Amino acid sequence: MTDISLRKARQIIKATLAKGREMDLKPLSVVVLDAGGHVKAFEREDGASPGRFAIAQGKAYGAVMLGMPGSAQMARAEQQAYFMAAANGVFGGQVVPVPGGVLLKDKKGDVLGAIGVTGDTSDNDAEAALAGADAAGLVGEA
Amino acid sequence: MTDISLRKARQIIKATLAKGREMDLKPLSVVVLDAGGHVKAFEREDGASPGRFAIAQGKAYGAVMLGMPGSAQMARAEQQAYFMAAANGVFGGQVVPVPGGVLLKDKKGDVLGAIGVTGDTSDNDAEAALAGADAAGLVGEA
Amino acid sequence: MTDISLRKARQIIKATLAKGREMDLKPLSVVVLDAGGHVKAFEREDGASPGRFAIAQGKAYGAVMLGMPGSAQMARAEQQAYFMAAANGVFGGQVVPVPGGVLLKDKKGDVLGAIGVTGDTSDNDAEAALAGADAAGLVGEA
Amino acid sequence: MTDISLRKARQIIKATLAKGREMDLKPLSVVVLDAGGHVKAFEREDGASPGRFAIAQGKAYGAVMLGMPGSAQMARAEQQAYFMAAANGVFGGQVVPVPGGVLLKDKKGDVLGAIGVTGDTSDNDAEAALAGADAAGLVGEA
Repeated sequence: MTDISLRKARQIIKATLAKGREMDLKPLSVVVLDAGGHVKAFEREDGASPGRFAIAQGKAYGAVMLGMPGSAQMARAEQQAYFMAAANGVFGGQVVPVPGGVLLKDKKGDVLGAIGVTGDTSDNDAEAALAGADAAGLVGEA
Repeated sequence: MTDISLRKARQIIKATLAKGREMDLKPLSVVVLDAGGHVKAFEREDGASPGRFAIAQGKAYGAVMLGMPGSAQMARAEQQAYFMAAANGVFGGQVVPVPGGVLLKDKKGDVLGAIGVTGDTSDNDAEAALAGADAAGLVGEA
Repeated sequence: MTDISLRKARQIIKATLAKGREMDLKPLSVVVLDAGGHVKAFEREDGASPGRFAIAQGKAYGAVMLGMPGSAQMARAEQQAYFMAAANGVFGGQVVPVPGGVLLKDKKGDVLGAIGVTGDTSDNDAEAALAGADAAGLVGEA
Repeated sequence: MTDISLRKARQIIKATLAKGREMDLKPLSVVVLDAGGHVKAFEREDGASPGRFAIAQGKAYGAVMLGMPGSAQMARAEQQAYFMAAANGVFGGQVVPVPGGVLLKDKKGDVLGAIGVTGDTSDNDAEAALAGADAAGLVGEA
């Protein structure tokens, strides 16, 4: 496991926000977590509501800790609501199981961390995050 | 109450992981809890996501504390979601009610502890755990 | 209440990290919170330990919530340890009462948010934070 | 950051326990955490009290999250009790700031994780942990 560098985290956030402006999304908040689920960098655009850090972190944290992107977590939550509720119990309520939590992998498939994006629809959040991963030369799994 | 020995816990983990390799499962994490629900031994295979200790522990903890293996907890969660939610309230959010939580009993039927396995599908996790119980000369109840 | 803009938060983080490099400090982590105590932006330099977000946030959060910079919180902790312990009770354990938590004020004296810096000695952390406030044209109170 | 492998974690635990037997210590419990503070492997010897997982984890967790071994955390706690209390607040009460929490570094000085040992005196716990690090070809910082 190699961790994400601050340089790459900055590239990801910059490109994710640029994608949001290009798609004309609502103000976005973007977090990048390392491979241990710890915050590397975060930015919240002006006009976003104050609680967005926690939502962004929750999307990315679940992705890292479970090794499942937001879409897979959402599918599991829809099939077995009690499983995701239980996962949230063991992870201290920090998991937000919807799209916008995107795993960051290198070319070999090793997980380097995750992006969490929130502010627009979950699907738009995920699309912006993928642009961020791409700009940093990483593989995003949404 | 007789507890599981460290020697048996090691046998269980070794055989569970060997079964996972034989079945070609994803990287597994295996915890053995004693009859009081406390961690005796744990191993997480390389490549497993970082949050797997908490999931494994949650599967085994619910089994010991409720005296019900994962499959029975899942059935209860599907019939009465609010009961398992309430159980998680009293147990501090530490219960993960799906297969992979396996009660460990001796030949007389006394509970010595539990195994918790996570990493592949819940049913495959449980199958690997049963191989672990068997290797230690114990009766696994999945 | 006027909040800190993302543009200013970026200026603060950039200048704080530059000051840290100029002073030859250990890798720093810098958070900027808004006037409501909510995360606006954060960066953790490569080589910093993984738990630094929580420490940086705790320094800045106490500053905003109590309206007291880190040095004043530390003085209070040394005089009345039970007061800061109680403050942590009501604020969910999120207050780290040492230098490195710096209030951000405009020229009129209104609080716009706070900076939290961690990684080197508390006094060096605070000095770097003040350079960050200055670069953004704001008044830092350490 | 490169993580500790399961193979190395097993070497560490085996050698730590062997050192404890050689020194005639009370039953030990040994955890190995990865560079993100997540449990990789754990064993609790027969006769150890049931709560030893949490103590071992707390010693190692503080070491990883703060980048400080147990002895440095203890020194800080003795100088500034309120700082370590506050650190425990932001880390959810998971930090046990005494010797027995040992950072694991490679030859270049990068942190790969930490060992947490508990069961005898804190200094003896730390001595056994250092033997574990050594056996795995890693540098232990106690």
